[in-house]
Amino acid sequence: MILRKISVFTLVAALLAAGSMATTAATARSAVTLETVTDGLSYPWSVAFLPDGGYLVTERDGLLKFVSGEGHQSVVPGTPEVFAQGQGGLLDIVLSPDFKTDGTIFLSFSQGSTEGAGTSLFRARLVSQEGGYRLEDGRTIFTGNNKAYGGRHFGSRLAFAPDGHLFMTIGERGDGARAQDPSDHAGSVLRLTPNGEPASGNPSLERDGYRPEIWSIGHRNPQAAAVHPQTGELWTVEHGARGGDEVNIPEAGRNYGWPVISYGRHYSGEKIGEGTEKEGMEQPIHFWDPSIAPSGMTFVTGDAYPHWQGNLLVGALRGQHLARLELDGATVVSQEKLLVDLGERIRDVRQGPDGFIYVLTDSGDGRLIRLKP
Amino acid sequence: MILRKISVFTLVAALLAAGSMATTAATARSAVTLETVTDGLSYPWSVAFLPDGGYLVTERDGLLKFVSGEGHQSVVPGTPEVFAQGQGGLLDIVLSPDFKTDGTIFLSFSQGSTEGAGTSLFRARLVSQEGGYRLEDGRTIFTGNNKAYGGRHFGSRLAFAPDGHLFMTIGERGDGARAQDPSDHAGSVLRLTPNGEPASGNPSLERDGYRPEIWSIGHRNPQAAAVHPQTGELWTVEHGARGGDEVNIPEAGRNYGWPVISYGRHYSGEKIGEGTEKEGMEQPIHFWDPSIAPSGMTFVTGDAYPHWQGNLLVGALRGQHLARLELDGATVVSQEKLLVDLGERIRDVRQGPDGFIYVLTDSGDGRLIRLKP
Repeated sequence: MILRKISVFTLVAALLAAGSMATTAATARSAVTLETVTDGLSYPWSVAFLPDGGYLVTERDGLLKFVSGEGHQSVVPGTPEVFAQGQGGLLDIVLSPDFKTDGTIFLSFSQGSTEGAGTSLFRARLVSQEGGYRLEDGRTIFTGNNKAYGGRHFGSRLAFAPDGHLFMTIGERGDGARAQDPSDHAGSVLRLTPNGEPASGNPSLERDGYRPEIWSIGHRNPQAAAVHPQTGELWTVEHGARGGDEVNIPEAGRNYGWPVISYGRHYSGEKIGEGTEKEGMEQPIHFWDPSIAPSGMTFVTGDAYPHWQGNLLVGALRGQHLARLELDGATVVSQEKLLVDLGERIRDVRQGPDGFIYVLTDSGDGRLIRLKP
Repeated sequence: MILRKISVFTLVAALLAAGSMATTAATARSAVTLETVTDGLSYPWSVAFLPDGGYLVTERDGLLKFVSGEGHQSVVPGTPEVFAQGQGGLLDIVLSPDFKTDGTIFLSFSQGSTEGAGTSLFRARLVSQEGGYRLEDGRTIFTGNNKAYGGRHFGSRLAFAPDGHLFMTIGERGDGARAQDPSDHAGSVLRLTPNGEPASGNPSLERDGYRPEIWSIGHRNPQAAAVHPQTGELWTVEHGARGGDEVNIPEAGRNYGWPVISYGRHYSGEKIGEGTEKEGMEQPIHFWDPSIAPSGMTFVTGDAYPHWQGNLLVGALRGQHLARLELDGATVVSQEKLLVDLGERIRDVRQGPDGFIYVLTDSGDGRLIRLKP
């Protein structure tokens, strides 16, 4: 009993001190200090920043956590039941562009059914309560068609465009042909209203066979999406097989080629599809071969990181680093691997309203880490 | 519809061909060919080999899978409900030493309750049914005391000693003091009868305050255990913090030092405990600093791998390789990193009854891979 009491005291002391614990990582262009905001997260997937401070973090096995500025965690009840198998579960979170007035959040998640699982979109209002928050008026506002068994390739990231439409990415569920089928939501980028309806101006108006929610097709498993801060265009990053991860700038009605063209090979070493280029299919602006397994992306804005201004940061799971891409317009001109010494899979990277970059490590003892310049 | 039909055909063809797809990995002492037995596993944790062929694989989120020799998967119903959060879930599987006559299997798992979660042991009989197997007469035969919240450090591996007793490792649930408390099952190696009762000859008979199931204390999070093929001794490998992973040969009533002594530092960079040595506490026979995050181990016997004879293989999660340790008795004389190019976290490594080494990759699209010399 005495040992147990000491231990609880030690843990509390450690939690209180966590904000001040930090290690420094050198990079080619500057040194950043890593501050652990909180740890002990269960496979955290995505982080959103609350205007009054604190963070909302999704955990893949199904919990939404509120993390206070001091790093204390509490569960946010009211989330949808998720299909937590393989790569499926509770996935992305974004706040409404009008969050300060409507208090609305959006969650993407894997939804199970007797016919299999698919990717869905959930909307709710975040309401404060003693010690944290809860969700109210939660509703699943979009459900991908053609559910399938297995735990592979659900996507999914969410990103609001400047015009208020919501982009949502969906993986092809491990079935490449679904990415080439414009009547199938899987393997696509969708463009929705905040009610989960098809956005006006989507390609289905001009093209037969397109589901009205679909923006672009031919995507394998896009697990990163962000809107470019200057152009307002959607950028996405998707997983290849053993190689062929891609950065794309998806345009309406375009086909991004999976599994017909790819810069990678299957895990077996077997060639993929027809090659790397084909008429009527788009080229990525950048690819990785072998795969780094990219997840999460953000553009660096503001002046907190003068040497990274305008760069694109992409998390690497298998690659266990944070990829920093220097851009000239839509061209990647150089690349640096950050956080290599951390030796952790990076699931998400975001820039907070404080101008700092935050990453989530993909682990059963996952951390939210702030990168201080 | 045509596209969907083609796709199903392609998938079937890929599955049928899986056994013949292979890549070759060169090592310092020999080349091995990697054959994917099956993929699409959800965070597979442990593999056992059935005498009639095929494999039993635990998936951390709760399913037990039968994998046929051809790589086809089917769910084995009858498993216990698991606490699948963080590092918790369905963990190790071993067959009874008398499996051919008693058909009995043992599973370690994280068990939830209203007071938190802990590590438990489940026993059942494997019964064949159409297309696979089911469990019958399943019963939880041991439950660790002092359940706790959070998803960290459950262990757990199982290994039968030559005398028929069952060793079971349990992590300290993220609370170092529990590893030093001999009245607490967490942070210990246990030695049990096949009924989950304390084994005769355990240290509690001579030491006050020891729980009767406990064999040794002072362990952080042991996720690898194997009995040495010549000496019959238990060997374990446990996770350190940022450094300080250890290989130990746990002896009755001994204290392996966590968190008082360790060769690592906390993730924060802070020093751990009192240093690296202390009277009354045992030294590891090997340690890694920085951490490779070891999980799963096996000794290489037989003549399939002449250059690896008698070596110890240890999976590395964070390290993304298979560590090959050459031994001289209980001394590690050299080390090689295998499967570095695979770029996958290795959760388990086992030698099958066919003499070949098998590994499980820790991923939402996890694979069982055979290493062919």
